[in-house]
Formats: sequence, C-alpha cells, structure tokens
Amino acid sequence: MASVNFEISSTSSSGPPTQQRPRQRLMMKLKEFPEKLWENGVVEVAKIAKKMGEDDPRRIIHSVKMVSTLTLVSLFYYLQPLYDVFGEEAIWAVLTVVLVFEFSVGATMGKGLNRMTATLLGGALGVAAKYLATLFGGIGKPIFLAASVFIVVAIVTFMRFHPALKARYDYGLMIFILTFSLVTVSSYRDDEVLEIAYKRLLTIVIGSCICVAVCICICPVWIGADLHNSVAKNLEMIGDFLQGFGGEYFGRVVEDGDDKSFLEGYKSVLNSKSTQETMANLARWEPFHGKFRFRHPWKQYLKVGTLTRQCAYKVEALNEHLNSEIDQTPSEIKSKIQAPCTIICLESGKALKELGGVVRKWTSSSSAISHITFSRTASEDLKSLLKTVYLLEDGDLLDIAPAAAVALQLIGVVKCVEKIAEAVQELASLAHFNSVESSVVAPEEPHFLHQGTVVPVSEGIMHHVITIEQGSDTDLPQNNSQSMINLVVEKHSN
Amino acid sequence: MASVNFEISSTSSSGPPTQQRPRQRLMMKLKEFPEKLWENGVVEVAKIAKKMGEDDPRRIIHSVKMVSTLTLVSLFYYLQPLYDVFGEEAIWAVLTVVLVFEFSVGATMGKGLNRMTATLLGGALGVAAKYLATLFGGIGKPIFLAASVFIVVAIVTFMRFHPALKARYDYGLMIFILTFSLVTVSSYRDDEVLEIAYKRLLTIVIGSCICVAVCICICPVWIGADLHNSVAKNLEMIGDFLQGFGGEYFGRVVEDGDDKSFLEGYKSVLNSKSTQETMANLARWEPFHGKFRFRHPWKQYLKVGTLTRQCAYKVEALNEHLNSEIDQTPSEIKSKIQAPCTIICLESGKALKELGGVVRKWTSSSSAISHITFSRTASEDLKSLLKTVYLLEDGDLLDIAPAAAVALQLIGVVKCVEKIAEAVQELASLAHFNSVESSVVAPEEPHFLHQGTVVPVSEGIMHHVITIEQGSDTDLPQNNSQSMINLVVEKHSN
Repeated sequence: MASVNFEISSTSSSGPPTQQRPRQRLMMKLKEFPEKLWENGVVEVAKIAKKMGEDDPRRIIHSVKMVSTLTLVSLFYYLQPLYDVFGEEAIWAVLTVVLVFEFSVGATMGKGLNRMTATLLGGALGVAAKYLATLFGGIGKPIFLAASVFIVVAIVTFMRFHPALKARYDYGLMIFILTFSLVTVSSYRDDEVLEIAYKRLLTIVIGSCICVAVCICICPVWIGADLHNSVAKNLEMIGDFLQGFGGEYFGRVVEDGDDKSFLEGYKSVLNSKSTQETMANLARWEPFHGKFRFRHPWKQYLKVGTLTRQCAYKVEALNEHLNSEIDQTPSEIKSKIQAPCTIICLESGKALKELGGVVRKWTSSSSAISHITFSRTASEDLKSLLKTVYLLEDGDLLDIAPAAAVALQLIGVVKCVEKIAEAVQELASLAHFNSVESSVVAPEEPHFLHQGTVVPVSEGIMHHVITIEQGSDTDLPQNNSQSMINLVVEKHSN
Repeated sequence: MASVNFEISSTSSSGPPTQQRPRQRLMMKLKEFPEKLWENGVVEVAKIAKKMGEDDPRRIIHSVKMVSTLTLVSLFYYLQPLYDVFGEEAIWAVLTVVLVFEFSVGATMGKGLNRMTATLLGGALGVAAKYLATLFGGIGKPIFLAASVFIVVAIVTFMRFHPALKARYDYGLMIFILTFSLVTVSSYRDDEVLEIAYKRLLTIVIGSCICVAVCICICPVWIGADLHNSVAKNLEMIGDFLQGFGGEYFGRVVEDGDDKSFLEGYKSVLNSKSTQETMANLARWEPFHGKFRFRHPWKQYLKVGTLTRQCAYKVEALNEHLNSEIDQTPSEIKSKIQAPCTIICLESGKALKELGGVVRKWTSSSSAISHITFSRTASEDLKSLLKTVYLLEDGDLLDIAPAAAVALQLIGVVKCVEKIAEAVQELASLAHFNSVESSVVAPEEPHFLHQGTVVPVSEGIMHHVITIEQGSDTDLPQNNSQSMINLVVEKHSN
C-alpha cells in the first residue's frame, strides 16, 4: 500500500511532504513491529498457554512426563554399552515413545499393547512370507512378495472399517499393515531381516513398556476415573439446572449479580455421547487400580450417560420456557401449579445431585431415594391438581398451555430421574460402590428439606410462605408436602 | 471340563461307560470343530464383511486403492534403477503410504500436508541442532542435544492440547516431534544426517504426493460432499418424522405392515455434532472440486447442523407423546386441535425436506418458503384456536395438557424451521447454490398440498374431510388453510 500511495502522490504537485509521509509511516511501522509482535504474539500466546495450563494442570505434567521418557529412551542411543546391544535399531525405541505415549494410562496401554502385538504378528507373518518367497526364484520372488502384501493388506484395510475393531484395535491393525509391509518389502533386498525384525521388536517392546511404566507410576491420568467423574458431573449439572429452574420459572426476584451459569451447564451433556464412548473404550485397556477392579462395568456408565442425556433433552425443553418470548403465561396462573412444580424441581435436582455424589464418592447412599419419593409424591399431587378444572377460570388455553407443558415435562423428568436412579443403583452394585466407603462418609448436617418462598407476583393473590423442616422420620416430610399442596389447592378453590 | 468330568466319574463305581462317554464327547467335539468353525467363524465373518461392503461399497474400493498405491510405491524398492537413487530410504515411502492413505481426500490431504510440512520443519530444526551441538565438544554435545529435545518436544507436546491445533494439526505436531527427535538423537552418532534427512524427506514427499494423487484421481471420497449430504439427510429425516407425526399422534388407523422407521431416523441427528465437526475439519483440507469452491462455507454447514439438532430435541419431546402411557389425551380433545396441528406437521415436514433437497441438489428453490408460510399461518391459527376456551368443556387440564404441550411444541417447531430456512438460505448464497443448477431442476408436478383426512375416533363428533388443492397462485392455499381452520373453529363453537 505504501509504495502505491507514493507513486500516485509523486505525480501530484505537493512532492516532498507526501514523499516523506509514507516513508515515515513505514519507519513507524518497522519501529512498532517488535512491540506489536510482543503484544499480539508472545503475550497472547503466553496467555493462551497459561489458561490451558490452569484449565487442566495435568497437561503440563504430561508434557514433562513425555519428554522425560523420551530423554530416558534416548540413552539407548547415547550410552555406548546400550548402543552396543541394540545398535541403529535403538532409534525405534525413541520412535515408539513419540507414537505411544498418550495423555491417559488407557490410551497409552491401548497403543502400547496394540503396537507390541501388531509388530509381533506383522513381523512374524512378514518373515514367513520372506521364507516362502525364497522357494520361488528370480522374478517369482518379488511377485510373490507383492501378491502377499496385496492380499493381506487389502483384507486388513477392509477390517479397519468394522466399528468394533475400529474402536479398540485401529492402531494395532495399522501397525500390523506397516510392519508386515516393511518386513515383506525390505526382505527382497535384505537377508538379515530376521535379526532386524527381532531387534526392532525388542526395542519397540522396551519403548512401550517404559511408556506404560512412566504413565502409570508418575501422576497417572486414569481415563476410567475421568469417565467416572464425567458421569457424576453430568448428573450434578442436570441437578443444578433443576434446582435453579423452579425459582427462575416461577419468577423469583433476580438480583443482578446472580450467577446464572447453572442454566447453561447442562448443554454440554447434550453432546457427551461420543466423548463418553471414547473414554469407555480407552478405560477398558487400564489395569485394575484403586476402586476400579478387573472387569469394571464400563457399559453401565454408558447406560447412565444415555439416560442422563435423555433427561437433558427434557431439560432443554424446560429451558426454552425461561425465554419469556415463548412462555407468556401470566404469573397468577403459574402460581397455581407453583407449589408441586417447585417441589419436583428441588427434589429431582437434589436426587440427581445425590446420585452424582453416589458415583463421585463411591457410596451407595439412600438419601437419593427419599428425594425421589418426595418428587414422585409431588408429581402425583401435580397430576391431581391438573385435574381440577378451576385453573381455567383465569385465562384461555394459550395462556395456560405453557405452564401445563412445563408441568407435564416435570412429570416426565421425575420418571426419568427414577430410571437414572435405577441405573446408578445397578452401577453401584456392579462396581461394588459401598464396599469400602459407605461407613466413611460423614453424615450430612440436618438441613431444611424445602425452603421455597412461593411469591406470586400479582398483587390480588395472597402470599404463601412454605417452610418444611425435615424431621428424623423420613415419612414426615412426605405428609407435610402432601398437606401443603392440599392447603394451596384449597385456598385457590375458594 | 471334559477331563474334570472324567476324573470325578472314574472314582465312582460305573467305570467303563462313563470313561467312554467323555471320550466320545471329546471325539464328537473334535469332529464337529471344523464344521462349527466353518459355520460360526468363516460364514459369520463373510456375512459381516458382505454387510460392511453393502453398507458402503466405497470401503472395498478404498481397500483396493490403498493396497494398489502401496504396491506402486514398493516398486521404489523392487526396481533397481529407482533403488539406486533412493537406496534404503525408499522404505520411508512405503511407510508414508500406510500412515497417510486415508478413506477421504480431506483426511489424506490433511495427513499428507501435515506430514510433509512437519518433516521439513522438524528435520531442518534437527539439523540446526546438530550443527549447534558440534560447537560443544565431548560430553557437551549429547547434553546440548538432549536439552534441545527436552525443550522443543515439551513445548510442542503442550501445544497439542490446544483445541484448534488439535483439530487440524495434531498429526503434524506429532510428526514434527518424531522427526526432530529422530534427527537430533541420531545425529549424535551419524554424521551423514543431512543426506539421510534429505532422502527421507524426498521419499516422504513422493509417498504423500502419490497417496494424494491416487486418492483424488481414482473414485475420490470427498468428505466435504459427505458433510454436505449428511446435513441434507438430517434435515430430511426430521422432515420425515414431522410428516409422519401428525398421522401417528392423531390416531391414523395403523396397518401392521407399516414401516415405522421414519419415527426412529431422527435419533441419529441428536448425536451428530462430533461427527459433523470432524467432517468439517477434514473438508477444509480438500481442494476445490465440482461445486465445492475455494473457501467453501464449512462453518455454515455446522450452523445448519446445530439448528437441525435443536429441532431434533423438539422432535424428541414430540416423540414421547406417541407413547400412549404418557399421553392419555382422549381423541375427542385431540381432534379439536387436529386440523392446524396436522397442517403444521405436514408443512413443516415438507419445508424441511425441501430444505434438505435444496442442499442436496444445490438449488435455491423457493418452494420451502411457501411451505413455511403455510405452517406459520397454521401456527397462528393454532394459537387463536387455543385462545378459545370452549376446548375445556370436555375434560380436565390433565387430559388437555398433553395435547396443549404438543401444540406448543409444534409452534416451537415452526419457529425452529424458520431459523433453519434462514441458515440454509445463507448457506445457499455463500456456497453459490443457484448459480448453475437453478434452471436445470425439473418443475415438480402439481400435487395436493394437504390431503389430510381428519377422522376423530369418537362417534359423537362429526367427521371432517379436508382436502385443499394447491392452485397456481401461491397465496390461494394460505387463504384456504385459514378459512378451513376458521370453519373447524366455528363448527365447534356452536
């Protein structure tokens, strides 16, 4: 741009000043460049790196672990005694570390075992092909070698499309193709194939084993534990939403500083399927450790995950009602179903968070069951409330429909939570949840079961403040909630 | 098991017969083994392979393409003149083909370009490290080499966690680490590093280029086209559901042989996010081809995909109402909102299928707009219908609520379809849809706009048969649908 400006201006009358201006600009830009590079480049990159490290500090640890392993394995090449044993092939150990060392133990073990087995099988088959090829003389040898590569590689390449094989053995199948092709093709010229193959296999095994050992021994990242926590977190996020939804929908006075993040958290649950499936596939490679035993029920985690997503779809439908454009139900109508709906929200939310806690803390706590019982009772009460036609005196169906839809959706949520509770219960028994920790968990301090403040906004209607204390008897609150709803119903029917 | 049985039975009195029985069983099993292996093993595997091939015949083509490329590249090793040029390093071309050749052009180009660039950069940096290391003598050399590997590899390993880099350059970063480590470590012993690095780079470039060429020239699989079609298919599947939903929900007489697959198709849309994002990332690597130009708007596909998923969540909520256990609305109540709801279902469904067709056929057809107009009108009619309180005379709110929820959900669907239409319109203009094909598309033959047969099941209520023919004037059906609904409303208000 600068030079173009220069040429145009030089043809005009005011020569010298415009001649200097672009030059000055260029000089200015050149002077500013290091500063801008520093600001936009280095500082920006440093910020991103800092944020990445803060988001998950295990990333930094992984980088250090990986590069330490690489340095350790390079000693095979640097140290003369080790080099004397392995020779040039020592470089394959370095290569193995770069390719096999992954973030989680599951991924590293999966890749390591795949690589070792596939190298062994591919190498053995390649050596067999080489010896068979020697039976043919002259031009027959390369033709036989090429034909065997063609058939074996075509079949294995096709096998890689099988979903079950792709999920667990894709890397192994690729390494099998690689090793088989390398050994078979190079056997045409190299007669020492067997020795090279043996040394390469040995260095690959050593490299893989070192990777797995470092991965497990130094700050291990268990992908199984990540899946475990992700299932728990998803339950808790849905619970958070439900606990907050009642207040949001029924017009709690919202303060400006309020944190509304709980209304968005569930969105990540909607698209969690592929991540959880990948995690479960990798977790299967991990050896038993801590509470994760041999044959840990990974499938059951996926089942809980699927049910959680189904609940998240319902929550997505509920969330749309928070948008006032869609839901214009007057608050006096809303207030009529407020009591049981609020109880369902609070209790289902609590139940889900309890279930999340059950998974997270490896305990089979029964407190979720009581919350589910309360929400089921509230759901029945809501149904009987909906049966009373008086609700319709105040408005037309278009006004009432959104509130009715919310009510129905909440009834659906209660059923969904029950299913989740069953699945979590099954998970708890399959994964032996209560075996160790059940007695360790500190009993929660007594707390109010519901302290919902039911405040219909319109002025003509009386205010109810409902406070129910949780007694020592678990049946008590249920009766309370029942009678409380009856109270509300009676008040409105007058 | 057989030997255990044998030992136990030999201690009992009836020796010879039981001694023979397990043996016989063993012999029987041995005889059956080849047969069973054939039945359960070979036949089963053949069936699976046949199904995989039938599901996507491109898989077979890919396997043949891949192995042909591999054979072609092995010629570098088999043929003496080529071997004289590249020597031992020719094996790296074989290795490159196995690692780079992927199913789609996008994936192959992505891996090929990543591999070439990363090898060049990693190799160059490695050679630079080698020459810097020679400045240090004795023990200083390996320490400098190890330190430079430590710093560079740690930084790049950490970089791999960055989501944007991971999505597009993960393979390149890994190959960079690999090449840099290999060159730097092996430079400790090998002084011919420069020549080896050069030859290796050359064979890798040749291998990658051959892969890309074969991938593009012989039956190419464009992942961009797959994404394009997947977006279209998702729209059509939601459209299929909506078109069918009206009939299913309002109690069309269902015949046994009916294909209900259209009710399940949408479920795959719910979890389509990660697949579509991967596809878009790979599609960015593809060169322009056919209607996919340079800077094709891949992001817009993801936008349409996201809106389609939002519609799918609503459809999921609708689908639950088909389960009679949840929705027990008597059909006489349903029949009151049947007319506008059926129109919304049919017209929204048609609009979505038209939009799917717009994407699939690269045309910017306006017929979707008229369908959307009809469904919007029906949506307004439904709203005014809901405002008439007479609906509530027949039942309590619990009976009416599910139908009201369906009605609201359908009103939401109409809005969602409008958003999708806007996004598809934007896509059409960004991707130059109508530029070529708009005049080519054959005009659709005249057809009935709606031929919904509204048959309330209960006997006390009169039967309406509504048939609206689509005239040549696009405004006409709108008026028809309006008047038709008014007719229904009036009849009921009497």
